[in-house]
Parts: sequence; C-alpha cells; structure tokens
Amino acid sequence: MSREKREGGGLLLPRRQFVRTVAGSAAMLAGSLAGAGTARAANPDNLPPNEPEWAKALGPGVDATPYGMPVSYEAHVVRRWVPWLTASSESSVNFTPLQDLHGFVTPNGLCFERHHGGRAEIDPADHRLIIHGLVERPIMLTVDDLKRMPSESHFYFCECAANSGMEWRSAQLNSVQFTHGMVHCAQYTGVSLRTLLDYVGLKPNAKWVLAEGADAAAMTRSIPIEKALDDCMVAYGQNGEALRAEQGYPIRLVVPGFEANMWVKWLRRLEIGDQPWYTREETSKYTDLLPDGKARLFTWVMEAKSVVTFPCPEKPLNGPGYYTIRGLAWSGYGRIKRVDVSVDGGRNWQTAKLVEPVLPKCLTRFELPWRWNGEGALVVSRAIDETGYVQPTMYELQKVRGVESIYHNNGQQVWEVKPSGEVENVRLKYAS
Amino acid sequence: MSREKREGGGLLLPRRQFVRTVAGSAAMLAGSLAGAGTARAANPDNLPPNEPEWAKALGPGVDATPYGMPVSYEAHVVRRWVPWLTASSESSVNFTPLQDLHGFVTPNGLCFERHHGGRAEIDPADHRLIIHGLVERPIMLTVDDLKRMPSESHFYFCECAANSGMEWRSAQLNSVQFTHGMVHCAQYTGVSLRTLLDYVGLKPNAKWVLAEGADAAAMTRSIPIEKALDDCMVAYGQNGEALRAEQGYPIRLVVPGFEANMWVKWLRRLEIGDQPWYTREETSKYTDLLPDGKARLFTWVMEAKSVVTFPCPEKPLNGPGYYTIRGLAWSGYGRIKRVDVSVDGGRNWQTAKLVEPVLPKCLTRFELPWRWNGEGALVVSRAIDETGYVQPTMYELQKVRGVESIYHNNGQQVWEVKPSGEVENVRLKYAS
Repeated sequence: MSREKREGGGLLLPRRQFVRTVAGSAAMLAGSLAGAGTARAANPDNLPPNEPEWAKALGPGVDATPYGMPVSYEAHVVRRWVPWLTASSESSVNFTPLQDLHGFVTPNGLCFERHHGGRAEIDPADHRLIIHGLVERPIMLTVDDLKRMPSESHFYFCECAANSGMEWRSAQLNSVQFTHGMVHCAQYTGVSLRTLLDYVGLKPNAKWVLAEGADAAAMTRSIPIEKALDDCMVAYGQNGEALRAEQGYPIRLVVPGFEANMWVKWLRRLEIGDQPWYTREETSKYTDLLPDGKARLFTWVMEAKSVVTFPCPEKPLNGPGYYTIRGLAWSGYGRIKRVDVSVDGGRNWQTAKLVEPVLPKCLTRFELPWRWNGEGALVVSRAIDETGYVQPTMYELQKVRGVESIYHNNGQQVWEVKPSGEVENVRLKYAS
Repeated sequence: MSREKREGGGLLLPRRQFVRTVAGSAAMLAGSLAGAGTARAANPDNLPPNEPEWAKALGPGVDATPYGMPVSYEAHVVRRWVPWLTASSESSVNFTPLQDLHGFVTPNGLCFERHHGGRAEIDPADHRLIIHGLVERPIMLTVDDLKRMPSESHFYFCECAANSGMEWRSAQLNSVQFTHGMVHCAQYTGVSLRTLLDYVGLKPNAKWVLAEGADAAAMTRSIPIEKALDDCMVAYGQNGEALRAEQGYPIRLVVPGFEANMWVKWLRRLEIGDQPWYTREETSKYTDLLPDGKARLFTWVMEAKSVVTFPCPEKPLNGPGYYTIRGLAWSGYGRIKRVDVSVDGGRNWQTAKLVEPVLPKCLTRFELPWRWNGEGALVVSRAIDETGYVQPTMYELQKVRGVESIYHNNGQQVWEVKPSGEVENVRLKYAS
C-alpha cells in the first residue's frame, strides 16, 4: 500500500476513448466473452465433458447445519477491522465487505459493527424499555410486550457518521471495505415509535426524545420529536430473524436516514423532554469542526453518497474486455433518483442503471456496462437523490467543510484502474 | 403430539364474540398491556432501577466474529428435520422456522433445504454452465463470466411442491415449521435467463429448456420457453452474499412462482429443445395423482397460500389479553391482494393489514390485532392474489384433487387455540 503514490498518482489522466453504452444485452455480450473468464486455475478432471467429483457421490445431508454458514470457498468474505485505526477492539469498529456483496441486502453476519463499550449480550427476559418524561402515562415494557403490538418492516441503510472519515484530507485506505464499509442495509421489523408515543401520550411541551442504550457506554442521543413521530422504529427483527447481539439485541432504535450512532442499540430508555440533552456523543463527538473553528451540531442526515464496488482495490480487472461496473448509492433524504458513472475522472458521465426496487433511505444498486480497453482509467460515481441534491466531489466538499472533521464525508470516490488491471484509491487534483 | 386428538378435535366451536379491529394504535393498546409481558422469569438484579450486569463492564470487541452468528438466546431458531419422514438425511429435507421469523426475508442460514443427492460443495473455479441445443451459438460460461454481465436483483419466495404435503388427508404435524416450512424468501441476484438466451440465439423451433444440476442426482426439469424468457434468472447471489452450498452454490436457476424443484441448484447445463424431456422428476415425481387415477403433469405454479405464524403450535398464547395475529401469504401468480383472518374457523372474516412493500411472487407479511378473551378459538387465514384467486379450504381442495397427491396443497390451515393458550393443528369437519 503506497500512500504517497495514491496521493500523488491522482493527476487527471489525458482523456481517453471509452466504449459507449451499447444498447441491448445481446449486442453488449456478442463476441466479448470468449476466453474472458478462464483466468482462475481449474482442475481439468472436473471440467466438461468429465463428471466432476461432487457429482459422483452423495453429498452431506440436511442435518449437518441447523443454522447454515457460507461455503468454504467464500471464507474470505468477512468483516474486517484496522488494528492501527483504533486503540482497542472493545471500543472499535469493523467494516462490511462491500466488494463481495450483491443486491442491496447485507447479510446479518456481515453488517459492520461499531461499539462504544463492547458488544452487550442481553438476556431478553431481563431487558426492559422505559418510556417516561413529558408523557401522560410512563410505561415499562418487556420485549414480549413489543412483539404483541402492530409491527412494520422496512429496508433501511444504516451508515456510521464516520464512514469514509479517514479520507477527508487525502486518499488513505486502499480498500472499499475500509473507505465505505461502515454502512449496511437490512429489513428491520419492529414497532413504530409513533405507536409507542401515541400510547404513552405526549405532553404539549414534548419536543425531544433521549434514547439510551443498556451497554457499558450507556450510549445516549437526543432526537427531535418530529423525527420520532415520522419514521423511527423500535426494532427487534433484522433480515427476518432476531437482531444480532452486535446490532443491539434484543431491541434497537431505527432512525432512518440519520447517522448510525443515533440508532441506539440495546435500547432501554426513551425520555421525553422539551430540549436536547447535549450528551457527550452529540457535543464532544459526532459534531463537525469547520474551517472557521465553529462546529456543526446535530448533523443527523446522511446525505446522498455512492461508491463503485466493482472495480475496486479488492477487485481488480482481469485483462481487457467486457465488464459491468457496479456500485451502491443511498440518501438519508429519500430515494436515489439517478447515479452517473465516469471512467475518466469526472470529465464525461454516463447514467447508470438502477436495479429495482429503488426504496427510500435504502441502499440502491447501480451498474453500467463497460468494455475496458486496457488503458488507465479513473472510475468514479455520483448519486443524485429525489431532492435534486448531487453528491459533491471531494474538492467541492473540502471548500465548504475544510478537512478537520472525520464525519459526514460523502464526497465522490475515485478509483484508478491501472493498465495491469490493479485498482488504487486516488485523489484527483483539480486545476480550478 | 396426539394425532387422533388433532383429527377429532376440530369440530367447529360455537360462535363466540371476538374483539373487532380497533382503529388507531393508541386505542388498541390502551389498558391492554398492563402485566401482559411479565411471564418469563427475570433476574431482578438486572431489572430497573438496578444496573444490569452487561452495563457494568466492556463487552466483547469487534474482532470476535468476522462472520457473525446469532446470539445464544436465539439458539432454538434453527432448521429442523423429521427423521421418520425421510429414509436418509442425504436425500432429504429440512424446514424453515417460520414461527420465529419477522418481515419477509428469510436469513440464508435458515432457508429450508431439499436435496435429491445431498449437498454438493463445488469449487467455483471448476464449475461451468453450458448452453446448447437449438441455439445459434452454444456457449460454455464460467461463474466469473456471469458476474461480468448485467445483473438483476429480485425478492422471490421459493416453495417446495411438497410443502404441506403431509396434511392432505388430515392434520398431521403439530408445528408450523413442519406443515409450512418448505418455503423461504430471499433477494436473488444474477443474470436474466433472457439475456443468456438472447446471446446464444434461439432457433425458431426452440420451445423448451432443460435445466440440469451438477449434484449427484443430476436433477433435471423441463421449463417452457415462455417462462424462460419471462422472469427466470441464473442467480449467484442470495440475500446480498454468494448462494449457500445447500442452495446451489455457485449458481442456481430461479424460476419465480414455480415449484422449487425447478429452481435447479448447482446449475451446469441448459439445453434448448422443441419438446419437454419428461424426466423422472416430472413424471414419476412432482405429478399430482387425481381421484380418477389420472395425474396432473407440469403443475408448475405455486398457487395463493397463507398461514398464521402467530399463534401457532410452537408459539402458544400467554393468557388472555392483546395480541397481534401474524402470518405469511404468497402467490406464484403475482402480488397478494388481500388476506382475511378468522378466529372462529372461517365463519367470520376480518381483513388483515399487509405489511409494505407487497412485491410480486414474494412472501407478504400480514397481521391483525386480536384481544383474546381466553376461550377456545379457531384461527385461520385465506389469501387472495391479484388474479382474484382465493385460497381454498381443505374441504374445497379435496373435492377437486382428492387426497392421493403429496404436492400442491395450498389449503387453509386451521389452528385451534385452547383455553390454556396451547395451539394445535386441527382439521375442520364441514356439515355440507
């Protein structure tokens, strides 16, 4: 990993000719696939016309894996962490392997973790949710109580405010897992927070909700009542099963589109008040230091962002030929409207295909066919959401926000594809 | 488990009064939750106002589980099989634990398995997909080739033709996992089969596709060309990650809405022909014997079906009070339009809420609030799909199909709730 090379190697390459989008799948594929996929070593005994070894005898039966795990050939697809980035694993973070994902669902076993006091393992029989403060009827609920109530299920992305946080000044981490892997997307099931607040009865001066976790950090954040009554949920289900321990089992708050530290895990208390609490996690942390020395406070919404997940540093190209550029886009303000992709560092853009369904505050998969001619290229994407907001370049973002914050970096990510097919994280230098 | 009791205990109970749907969440909940959820034994040292043990010290860090697993308190949520139902585990089946699922996604680790020759574990470098027969350009593709092509992602249910197959004659298995657990639902990612067939070029007399697996059973099924060109996919991704070995890694055919044995796993060959192949799996098996001795052939579509997953035999009621009846509905013909729920064995019906999004050929979650008065009840659901088809009673189904088949039982499932709160699989006797 050569950081200098990545910092210095990002000069805009001379414009080159790239293949235009070709209409029609058959036309795109015709003639381009011959010999394209034979790079991996194969055992000829298993190739046609031979009968492969796994077809010659019965395989393992159904009782072998009551809770199934991935096949051994996918053992490299795991969450990873960066030892030098954080002092201890207990107060730390790991990253979703975006480079190996398909569609927009993140399997529960691969969702990034971010703990402030380690992972709590809570016996649900011993867990309670208290709702009190400026309410008519304070209540203490069990997990079973919550499951008796009407439920909702929604697909939402969940992104840490510090995702891409190392990349503010320059290209740092040569890996899409590490630059963008603090995001995941899952179907959450639980009780609408509005249902709970309707039940306890808000007093007229109820303006804020304090959410508190039962972990060793007792994570606390203030949430405006408008958001609490809009689309927040107290979730017990994730991707069809119970929340995982590292995601807040037995219950977590879901705050769609807002930074993930507000999705309080191991949720035990909701206090209703008339002003924010200014907790540690919304004053000394999770605020954004600006060039003039002031800090942005309560910057909740994760703005439109996208990243190309193929090609990327972990997934180089295997010689010239036909490929599909793929990536993910999301916006805390709602649906992704469009994603553009450039292979010349942003000089020319093509509109990518969005893979349906495109859901609000959910990851959206995009892709664009690309015939790579073997010359160097600068691959970059930009997302546009339904508000019309356009994901900025890093240059545009730095002009406004400076480089002192580690939070809310939603700048465009540029990957340099080298003639060898290798891919490197680079920062473009702009003339203007 | 008393089979006789379940067969004989299903007489229609006298009509009782049940609480009507109450509009508005607050009204539904008010006053009904007090003391409702305190049945499970709790350790008072962990309850408020005490600080629970897990809040007193740092929890495990993020490097403990690079591929995460469910928390120990959910260890009972597993696939299960019935040893007496099948002669050997290699040629066998296990069942999805529907009673513990939320939303409509089935986690990959819990998707039911059905193998005809055991689970093949295939090195993707050694796997090939051949497309030949009545085509202009026969081709052999690697898995990497497929990943270079444009992709699609869709949520589809996948149901074995024999799901509920033991229940044709009478109530047999006292478990929703065993009566209905041969269905799962996942986001599949892969290449549209139309894209591949466009590429190889169909000859004018191309009418059928033979799909063949690379497992020890060399599973083969004939698929009409209209379906192949409509919405079939060659999938490599399931719920965001690679297919699991037991689901056909590295590639399987996805045949939306059609019986699961046609979703050929470990797919290695697609042959295009002008007539069906009449393979073993579509003649001696997966045909439906009728009362007149004839057999229905090529009964591909899984018709509209639903089942209540709470309450159910595995999830009894814990005393009178407020509950939410929950279940799943699906149709191989498209979207679920409506689900009705009865608590008196089908005499009176209420329309359940469908949890959005309602997607075609995808599981749909429904729910209905219910205040249980502690008396016996007969809980049953019926699904109506967008074609207007109404899920039949078992009586209606048997009148047409008899009881000789084990396939395509989509009859209504009745659960008897006893005053004790226990729930039993019963068959209603009809006067007419």
